[in-house]
Amino acid sequence: MVNKVKEAWAQGRAVVNGWLAIPSGFSAEVMAQSGFDSLTVDMQHGVQDYLSAVACFQGMQPHGVTPMVRVPWNEPGIIGKVLDAGAMGLICPMVNTAEQAAALVSACRYPPVGTRSFGPIRAGIYGEAGSYFDTANKDIAVLPMIETKQALDNLEAILDTPGVDGIYVGPSDLGLSLGLAPKLDREEPEVLKIYERLLKETGKRNQAVGIHNGSAPYAKRMIGMGFKLVTIMNDSGLMLTAARAAVATAKG
Amino acid sequence: MVNKVKEAWAQGRAVVNGWLAIPSGFSAEVMAQSGFDSLTVDMQHGVQDYLSAVACFQGMQPHGVTPMVRVPWNEPGIIGKVLDAGAMGLICPMVNTAEQAAALVSACRYPPVGTRSFGPIRAGIYGEAGSYFDTANKDIAVLPMIETKQALDNLEAILDTPGVDGIYVGPSDLGLSLGLAPKLDREEPEVLKIYERLLKETGKRNQAVGIHNGSAPYAKRMIGMGFKLVTIMNDSGLMLTAARAAVATAKG
Amino acid sequence: MVNKVKEAWAQGRAVVNGWLAIPSGFSAEVMAQSGFDSLTVDMQHGVQDYLSAVACFQGMQPHGVTPMVRVPWNEPGIIGKVLDAGAMGLICPMVNTAEQAAALVSACRYPPVGTRSFGPIRAGIYGEAGSYFDTANKDIAVLPMIETKQALDNLEAILDTPGVDGIYVGPSDLGLSLGLAPKLDREEPEVLKIYERLLKETGKRNQAVGIHNGSAPYAKRMIGMGFKLVTIMNDSGLMLTAARAAVATAKG
Amino acid sequence: MVNKVKEAWAQGRAVVNGWLAIPSGFSAEVMAQSGFDSLTVDMQHGVQDYLSAVACFQGMQPHGVTPMVRVPWNEPGIIGKVLDAGAMGLICPMVNTAEQAAALVSACRYPPVGTRSFGPIRAGIYGEAGSYFDTANKDIAVLPMIETKQALDNLEAILDTPGVDGIYVGPSDLGLSLGLAPKLDREEPEVLKIYERLLKETGKRNQAVGIHNGSAPYAKRMIGMGFKLVTIMNDSGLMLTAARAAVATAKG
Amino acid sequence: MVNKVKEAWAQGRAVVNGWLAIPSGFSAEVMAQSGFDSLTVDMQHGVQDYLSAVACFQGMQPHGVTPMVRVPWNEPGIIGKVLDAGAMGLICPMVNTAEQAAALVSACRYPPVGTRSFGPIRAGIYGEAGSYFDTANKDIAVLPMIETKQALDNLEAILDTPGVDGIYVGPSDLGLSLGLAPKLDREEPEVLKIYERLLKETGKRNQAVGIHNGSAPYAKRMIGMGFKLVTIMNDSGLMLTAARAAVATAKG
Amino acid sequence: MVNKVKEAWAQGRAVVNGWLAIPSGFSAEVMAQSGFDSLTVDMQHGVQDYLSAVACFQGMQPHGVTPMVRVPWNEPGIIGKVLDAGAMGLICPMVNTAEQAAALVSACRYPPVGTRSFGPIRAGIYGEAGSYFDTANKDIAVLPMIETKQALDNLEAILDTPGVDGIYVGPSDLGLSLGLAPKLDREEPEVLKIYERLLKETGKRNQAVGIHNGSAPYAKRMIGMGFKLVTIMNDSGLMLTAARAAVATAKG
Repeated sequence: MVNKVKEAWAQGRAVVNGWLAIPSGFSAEVMAQSGFDSLTVDMQHGVQDYLSAVACFQGMQPHGVTPMVRVPWNEPGIIGKVLDAGAMGLICPMVNTAEQAAALVSACRYPPVGTRSFGPIRAGIYGEAGSYFDTANKDIAVLPMIETKQALDNLEAILDTPGVDGIYVGPSDLGLSLGLAPKLDREEPEVLKIYERLLKETGKRNQAVGIHNGSAPYAKRMIGMGFKLVTIMNDSGLMLTAARAAVATAKG
Repeated sequence: MVNKVKEAWAQGRAVVNGWLAIPSGFSAEVMAQSGFDSLTVDMQHGVQDYLSAVACFQGMQPHGVTPMVRVPWNEPGIIGKVLDAGAMGLICPMVNTAEQAAALVSACRYPPVGTRSFGPIRAGIYGEAGSYFDTANKDIAVLPMIETKQALDNLEAILDTPGVDGIYVGPSDLGLSLGLAPKLDREEPEVLKIYERLLKETGKRNQAVGIHNGSAPYAKRMIGMGFKLVTIMNDSGLMLTAARAAVATAKG
Repeated sequence: MVNKVKEAWAQGRAVVNGWLAIPSGFSAEVMAQSGFDSLTVDMQHGVQDYLSAVACFQGMQPHGVTPMVRVPWNEPGIIGKVLDAGAMGLICPMVNTAEQAAALVSACRYPPVGTRSFGPIRAGIYGEAGSYFDTANKDIAVLPMIETKQALDNLEAILDTPGVDGIYVGPSDLGLSLGLAPKLDREEPEVLKIYERLLKETGKRNQAVGIHNGSAPYAKRMIGMGFKLVTIMNDSGLMLTAARAAVATAKG
Repeated sequence: MVNKVKEAWAQGRAVVNGWLAIPSGFSAEVMAQSGFDSLTVDMQHGVQDYLSAVACFQGMQPHGVTPMVRVPWNEPGIIGKVLDAGAMGLICPMVNTAEQAAALVSACRYPPVGTRSFGPIRAGIYGEAGSYFDTANKDIAVLPMIETKQALDNLEAILDTPGVDGIYVGPSDLGLSLGLAPKLDREEPEVLKIYERLLKETGKRNQAVGIHNGSAPYAKRMIGMGFKLVTIMNDSGLMLTAARAAVATAKG
Repeated sequence: MVNKVKEAWAQGRAVVNGWLAIPSGFSAEVMAQSGFDSLTVDMQHGVQDYLSAVACFQGMQPHGVTPMVRVPWNEPGIIGKVLDAGAMGLICPMVNTAEQAAALVSACRYPPVGTRSFGPIRAGIYGEAGSYFDTANKDIAVLPMIETKQALDNLEAILDTPGVDGIYVGPSDLGLSLGLAPKLDREEPEVLKIYERLLKETGKRNQAVGIHNGSAPYAKRMIGMGFKLVTIMNDSGLMLTAARAAVATAKG
Repeated sequence: MVNKVKEAWAQGRAVVNGWLAIPSGFSAEVMAQSGFDSLTVDMQHGVQDYLSAVACFQGMQPHGVTPMVRVPWNEPGIIGKVLDAGAMGLICPMVNTAEQAAALVSACRYPPVGTRSFGPIRAGIYGEAGSYFDTANKDIAVLPMIETKQALDNLEAILDTPGVDGIYVGPSDLGLSLGLAPKLDREEPEVLKIYERLLKETGKRNQAVGIHNGSAPYAKRMIGMGFKLVTIMNDSGLMLTAARAAVATAKG
């Protein structure tokens, strides 16, 4: 299977990513028909676990979107499980040092690059098991989250870690770490300046930057700014917003 | 527990109803915080079964919306189960004759009115089992769907069936039965004329009419026309529409 | 597999039956270690469906209790499914006429006695598929519920229906049908007189009578009166009662 | 979506069908990669219910096999639900009369042909909801099971029922009904003669005949005899047989 | 949402806590109506995982009990997930050093106090996301378990760790660590002396002590001794005990 | 409960082990009737999590096979949970050093040998909780996986770790670590030489060696070579192979 996200990045294009918090293969297949390039099952803050992630992957597979996961933590057991289940992109929260980045990469790559254990139970579906092995190390996107002051302090070392394909920005946690309120779609100049630094440093290394957004217009603006993966809310947030608007209109 | 839908009807007010197709207690609790007066678990065309309906009821309960169900068919086994689970409103598809309406009412009401079996396993939560029994027959709204030519032919007899609290209109099936395409938010004069007849006949009998809608503005218009319960799409439809719009904006 | 319930009846002994409303294989295995002779998954008023019944059967199987089901309704589809899953006893609500009793028996027995379809997917576990077929028609206990005035009017005809192994009494619904409040452990002389009639008529035909009870002392009394299967509350009721008592003591 | 089964039949080819008893989307996707033309979720004798059927459909969808269901009974509620979920073939047990065949067809076809209610929640995935409606009545294969003496007595009338695309033979139940043991891969001359009659009568009407088999060689022989759909065991049976052989070899 | 446990502690009152081992939202809602002040989902020794904990939280929410969790281990991934799901109390097993206590607190508190990541997907239900953030750090009770000799050796340092609201005693493991048999409701003078030390040291620091008990009378005694949270068995233990007693009475 | 695997080893016999990747109690009970001595739920590369492992254990329990688990990682939280659920054998991936082996043993053994926490919620089923505690430390087989060059370098130290009952070989990962392709049933002389070393070193210490195999004949050969536990494929692999062969025959 081609990783459409990495393909887009190779061509210099940005992708629009959906975010799955609802633990249901059915809602995943609905989201998969909405036009997103990729869908990320959020196992950290979403109401998801391993088997619900598998169900979401099954729901999205026929619709051609690239399956991704945000794992709950930088822990090799769960990283191996979601990759075996077919994740083509792996977002990991709270990567604050080069050591943590190296551990993340190691868990995501087969030897000799890393230490991932072999057994792609569902991932092998995307081809013969042999061919999956041949290309998995380069096909799978490894994306540590940069979301603390400590990570910013170690930014270059994290980015220089071999095997890091890009980074993902968590604006709420980043804000918290800087002493600001937790929120998305930030406008503080100091934050936007950080975004520029992230784009510049990753640009030097031919890496992509993704970011979580609270609205489509802000996401569009971030694409314009140079981000190569933009997420808009999540499935439950899109539903809630739409439902509230519909109720308000009907009640007039 | 007060049935807020019947309370609103008693006061002449219309309610806005949400529709649950996603089999998840989590998405139900999100919908329950969107402003709807009631939420209906769609066991006919939704991706729902009995235990997912229970999960949805659990998700919505703390948020004060009235729990309702559309059963898959006019069958006493499933009707009893969802009422025991706590449904305060029961929408039944394809009620085409007075006999079918009487069977529906019988399955929903305890003796001596009907033949419902006693054992309100979750419904008893809304009070002492004793007090639930005392008021269930009048609290639960029984709403046969009028959605075929045959049902229109038998309309008065259906409405005259003791225990029918109102009706629910399925515009797609009604259209199909009339030789029209299956769709919501209909504008054909012949259909609008039928709606007027339904409102008039139920009005005479102090019954409410509900209708399924594909958009909030049309739902609002239906309230203006006299409908007392309007549904807007369903959870997955709201999510899909919002997701598509967000993607279009971000990519735009 | 020997049906211990029928074995006990053949020897003139009464059995104590547990009742499962919680849809969990784990709680079923806990109940299966409590000393009950049989456990009945309540698919009518319990929070149960077909797959949760299978999970409960799996939980109880190693502990030697006889698996039974109360189906939600006298419908051949679900009756066949739970028998295939391994139910050795089948309690069916609201059997009010000989015709209904005959339909129930027919759904429970293989030809030439009845019309059950062959495919004992889990039931075959209790032996070779061949041997299951050989004995299923006599091993499985078929127990219509007698719980309405109409059923009492048709009692002899129901009992005379070939293949009826006994009956099960639902005191709440029976009371409702007689114009009394729905409750267990009844003391009204008219009800106790009905119980005596049931015991007498079944006694003539070598059939067993079971009854649902709200307390262990009443259940014991019913055994003394001649009932051959007594149920005490259900899993969730036992838990609730014990929890309330424990809290009261601790807060005491 | 093209119904590959009907397409093959139109071209005079037979299809090999897999049978799903394990309630798991994962085992369904494994079976979907085994070379079967279609996979049937067995909701009658398999350990399956509606939501597990949906999970199986999701598992098989990316692999291009045609999704089918055997419903537990000829009941319009469950028939509508599995068609909405995306079943392209509908096998119904115990269709013994022309009236039952007509009821089955009616539940499977939209007006004006039948009375199916509109709301293809997952089936609409296979195209725009509009286009699904346009072709569903002809795309979906309706296959009553012929498995009793009564059905044989009414064979011509059942086959003459408009909308019947073919039949499916259940050798175990057919044997039982004839006073024989319940088994597959039958060799009794009287049974083979019945098969010939079924092939001849359906051949006259351009209908297909499917049959359940216990082994691949017998299935192949049935194709040679003229059957147009052959099922081989089921998922759990294939696994059990293979496991027993592997254990015997290893221990051997 | 007010944390009623901390509120009681602020007023000097003890709370009675229930313990959930059964992975079912239904059994949780039954337990939630039994009079407990709080309910703890036991993800360590109970038959629970993350999604079953969410289901239990949904079941208990309308009934006003305070939701708590015992996590399986001192691991930030699962701690974050259950807090996001709405846990207002966090019991962590095997906290044996001040470093472990500090790691626990860090995982439970937002910056600048700790390093919890922001995304309270269900917890935000208890108010606007904003207001949850404002009070979460002080509302959530963090309770390390003291259950080894090593923990006793480090007791003062553990208690002095900023952010520790109290401790929870596991009598079985504590006994094991001291070379005694694993059991509850201990009477060994050396153990009771340890309890007194725990009460004294926590008393100095205005912290609460909770303890697991095997019976209600012992729990009551512990309240008298100064414990501020007493747990009585668990859901399955209460059920088992009650079932055994009922069977004995009925058979007696 | 007797651990039949350890019993066989004590008698010098090899056991044949099945491997469960399908998250279903039903498929587990089918596998449990295939002749395997033990069944291992694969939580690392299988589509399994904790609750599905419990369901598999429930499915296999009545059939007398020894329940085992491969955990996803050497992490005390999940190790404790699966032991409490009743695992009698614990296979842990990627144990590369004596320290890791010691941590594994510690998590599996009660004090004073290790640090396992007491609460055998399902394991206690195999006897009174007291008796389980008395024998668990010696009954449970602890089997670190030897599957990297680093593990081979530390082999003696790993084997000398007190409490290690044997080892399990993962041929794919071992090959990867040696610069070979990931596959089972290896024939490279250098690998077979490693196997001989493993057998020799464990033989000195009276420990058993298990190995994962891709075919029954190779597994048999490994028994002949001295391996004491051989696994053949997994449930889904056996099913897939059998299904492909059946389709080929039928179509052939």
